[in-house]
Amino acid sequence: MTGKVYIVGAGPGDPELLTVKALKVIEMADVILYDRLVGKSIEDMLKRMGKEIIYVGKNSYENGAERQRNINELMVKLAREGKIVVRLKGGDPFVFGRGGEEVEYLIRNNIPFEVIPGLSSVIAVPTSAKIPLTHKGLSSTIFVITGRNLEDIGKSALNGTIVVLMGKEKIKEICRRLIELGKDPKTPVAVIENGTLDNQRVYYGNLETIGDIVEKNVKGVALIVIGDVVELGKKFNSRKL
Amino acid sequence: MTGKVYIVGAGPGDPELLTVKALKVIEMADVILYDRLVGKSIEDMLKRMGKEIIYVGKNSYENGAERQRNINELMVKLAREGKIVVRLKGGDPFVFGRGGEEVEYLIRNNIPFEVIPGLSSVIAVPTSAKIPLTHKGLSSTIFVITGRNLEDIGKSALNGTIVVLMGKEKIKEICRRLIELGKDPKTPVAVIENGTLDNQRVYYGNLETIGDIVEKNVKGVALIVIGDVVELGKKFNSRKL
Repeated sequence: MTGKVYIVGAGPGDPELLTVKALKVIEMADVILYDRLVGKSIEDMLKRMGKEIIYVGKNSYENGAERQRNINELMVKLAREGKIVVRLKGGDPFVFGRGGEEVEYLIRNNIPFEVIPGLSSVIAVPTSAKIPLTHKGLSSTIFVITGRNLEDIGKSALNGTIVVLMGKEKIKEICRRLIELGKDPKTPVAVIENGTLDNQRVYYGNLETIGDIVEKNVKGVALIVIGDVVELGKKFNSRKL
Repeated sequence: MTGKVYIVGAGPGDPELLTVKALKVIEMADVILYDRLVGKSIEDMLKRMGKEIIYVGKNSYENGAERQRNINELMVKLAREGKIVVRLKGGDPFVFGRGGEEVEYLIRNNIPFEVIPGLSSVIAVPTSAKIPLTHKGLSSTIFVITGRNLEDIGKSALNGTIVVLMGKEKIKEICRRLIELGKDPKTPVAVIENGTLDNQRVYYGNLETIGDIVEKNVKGVALIVIGDVVELGKKFNSRKL
């Protein structure tokens, strides 16, 4: 009998930000496929739980397409052995996570599957840094892009909050483009490093200054928030009560 | 001694989509303030847990501003009595949730607080309906708006996925504006009713047809997803394996 594959969102890295449902499915799983994006804390948790885990993340001898193909084939092979397979992915599996591609492959191979949402970094990381993505009088829209598709930055989003994933390396280019599009150079920007983890750190600046700040300081995974709400988040964060 | 207020995201309604951390804080709380947006299933769970809960949602004798003021004052009063207060909010507290306003009030009154992210409907509901908000070749951006600020719909978001909260009543106007802005009238649209709950239902159409479909069928809370990824989600959803 064929098993089943659960495509599960692991959230932004803090094991306590797993959902109850994700934890339940992990407990039930025969085998868990995970990669680096779930983060070290969750990897450690899986090891403590004594589950059978298989690392399917980056290594030196595959390229991206090969790796994805190997993951797809492994999921199908294990499910055909009758196993309950959890494919654990950082954040939410359907937001910048290639979860759709994995589901397409499972469908093509007639493997039963379920998708379980997770806390996407897009929202959980700003909230952990106390930055409200929307706030009365400051922003009523959220525009989410990645540093890999800078042509997607357009004018309509200029009034609301902009969230950039995977943008650390291109932060100067992103800021320059936004200024060119008419955004105030003094628009506040926050860069959240290692969001939701014990070593989370938030850097504040504006479109003119943040590039240098990031180049000098930020080593870890980073998420960028651009907009007036950043100023409010800074105020919220500075209060030690 | 002053207590503490936890502003906690309850997620989109399914109690199993609470985070482990949210559940932990709920268990620890002396008192929980909640409203209708956390959903009936979570309300029932709180009752089963035997916690002290206070409904602070809509009622007939307050308007929105009064209600928010009463919530703010109640949080502060309870914290000053030394209590651990959980303010439980639907979705994520900092995404279209007025969480920022509550934090501002707590800071003004020197009340210690913590913000715990939750699964926002913005992402969790489409994922539950098996619609990937991003997918290679189909969309690499997400634009989130509400039906209350239609002037925020702009041109830049036209190539990516658009998510509309609180847009059910205005769906025809939203579709008309997008067509005027140049969006293909055949662009797929999904409306997800009662997302993540047992009675979740997904309606599919396009910018021309979805308005009538919604007016005729959708009674519950609804989230709208617009873009080519909807077609893929429809394919994913139709597979009964």
